[in-house]
Amino acid sequence: MSLLIVGSTALDSIKTPRAEKPRLLGGSASHAAVAASFFGPVRLVGIVGGDFPARCLNLYRKHKIDLEGLQVAPGKTFHWSGEYEVNMNNRRTLATELGVFETFTPRLPESYRNSPFVLLANIAPSLQHHVLDQMRRPKWVVADTMDLWLNIALPDLLRLLQRVDGFVLNESEARQLTQEDNLVRAARKIHKLGPKCVIVKKGEHGAMLSAGGKLFLAPAFPLDSVVDPTGAGDSFVGGMMGYLSAARGPVEANLRRAMIYGSVVASFCCEGFGLTATTRTTRAAIEKRVQALEVLTRF
Amino acid sequence: MSLLIVGSTALDSIKTPRAEKPRLLGGSASHAAVAASFFGPVRLVGIVGGDFPARCLNLYRKHKIDLEGLQVAPGKTFHWSGEYEVNMNNRRTLATELGVFETFTPRLPESYRNSPFVLLANIAPSLQHHVLDQMRRPKWVVADTMDLWLNIALPDLLRLLQRVDGFVLNESEARQLTQEDNLVRAARKIHKLGPKCVIVKKGEHGAMLSAGGKLFLAPAFPLDSVVDPTGAGDSFVGGMMGYLSAARGPVEANLRRAMIYGSVVASFCCEGFGLTATTRTTRAAIEKRVQALEVLTRF
Repeated sequence: MSLLIVGSTALDSIKTPRAEKPRLLGGSASHAAVAASFFGPVRLVGIVGGDFPARCLNLYRKHKIDLEGLQVAPGKTFHWSGEYEVNMNNRRTLATELGVFETFTPRLPESYRNSPFVLLANIAPSLQHHVLDQMRRPKWVVADTMDLWLNIALPDLLRLLQRVDGFVLNESEARQLTQEDNLVRAARKIHKLGPKCVIVKKGEHGAMLSAGGKLFLAPAFPLDSVVDPTGAGDSFVGGMMGYLSAARGPVEANLRRAMIYGSVVASFCCEGFGLTATTRTTRAAIEKRVQALEVLTRF
Repeated sequence: MSLLIVGSTALDSIKTPRAEKPRLLGGSASHAAVAASFFGPVRLVGIVGGDFPARCLNLYRKHKIDLEGLQVAPGKTFHWSGEYEVNMNNRRTLATELGVFETFTPRLPESYRNSPFVLLANIAPSLQHHVLDQMRRPKWVVADTMDLWLNIALPDLLRLLQRVDGFVLNESEARQLTQEDNLVRAARKIHKLGPKCVIVKKGEHGAMLSAGGKLFLAPAFPLDSVVDPTGAGDSFVGGMMGYLSAARGPVEANLRRAMIYGSVVASFCCEGFGLTATTRTTRAAIEKRVQALEVLTRF
């Protein structure tokens, strides 16, 4: 079944201790859409400027992503640049140029409005609301977020939590949102805010799902080389929603496996700059790592 | 089969944001021995002073720990005091009074020298060597350590690594020892220093085993309340070695499951001050959490 993804579509300039790569295709929606494309049809909603390179459009097209919802506006594409420290965990934003993103209003083409699965990738909560306002009874809605929205748009975010099935956030965001250091208790508090499924991303330590009164611990695929972690969290949630939208049976029964697929796509993401490694992978390579994760965790 | 444990035997005064508990039974050997006692016979080597409380001796006895190797010397028992921050991850040592520990030389009773399993819990590497010098061909030797020995006794530690089957250390110690930020690569480097099994403890994120060219990811049991994490790492390795010493078949085939048992005993350790919660648990309660971990990680 179709998956609608809305989020940022950007150009990322990334610096690591080993290399510097300018103007790569990036943004939460780009990473999530490419990650999801390995599983089924993906519809993208975003905005780019007149400077958006043809190579980026071609990358979307290579992954058969439906671009009817991608607005092209006069002006510059959202540009983010950041730098990673040696350990690849701490990053510093060097510049954020919003460009056409500043006035973005997501408009859903008629053909998108009945999408059964919706991923509200990281973007302002008010825009996530606006997308839901245009939908016709979606089957399963998941929202991702970032610390910025906890800081500047908390009331919007809290209202959003009452409209989604699943909510994805990272460890420190979960702690900030709930004022609770313990993640099990933090997840419990987030359920009370609305979502029946809470997923806490823990980076290289995997992710935790809390749903139906039960926990699930999804490991991260252990990598011996991390080239660029930008977009790993977006790839995780994109891969997860891609798998969910293509799987048969009740969503709840597929969630654990979906997280494992998300974790594996995120591992590929980390092995190259921007989308370089994700776009080179295949469904077969993904299946191989899923099987490897089964072996890695069996006792 | 019997398990010999050598390490520190101490009194711990622990302060957390919620409470303060003076002079609890502590030390790496105490935590490891009690953790191992749920699985089979344990022989303890350590030293205490004339001030060592009867309640502490009784706690060892309650767990049927063989105390023939526990030296009682004139003077004060090793006393450590520390304080935890709100998140329970960062701790600060307030005082370390070595007492009789300063002149400790582990002497193995004749009956201990043929122990098939040996756990060199955290203690100076020179003393760990001295224990091995007194052993008759043990079947399986594991050493634990701490950052202090990397800083002040690295040559001793490096020589020790050539004499052990398994080496246990935490994430930051693995990074410090190998000058390698990536844990998969760090483990590979540690193998080259000697041990065929390398176990990296990651606290609340579990532990990673590297052995036989394969990795295993052991989750930590998710707790909704951490009272005092002191001794959790010692409990992990004690529980692991206790399980291994009691299990049938080749050690390598039992290692993954042994780590899960270690992880579970460590989870109990965190639920009370010092050994309070560990000593209250039962083999049945441990089995229940092992089964819960199976469910928590199944996909």
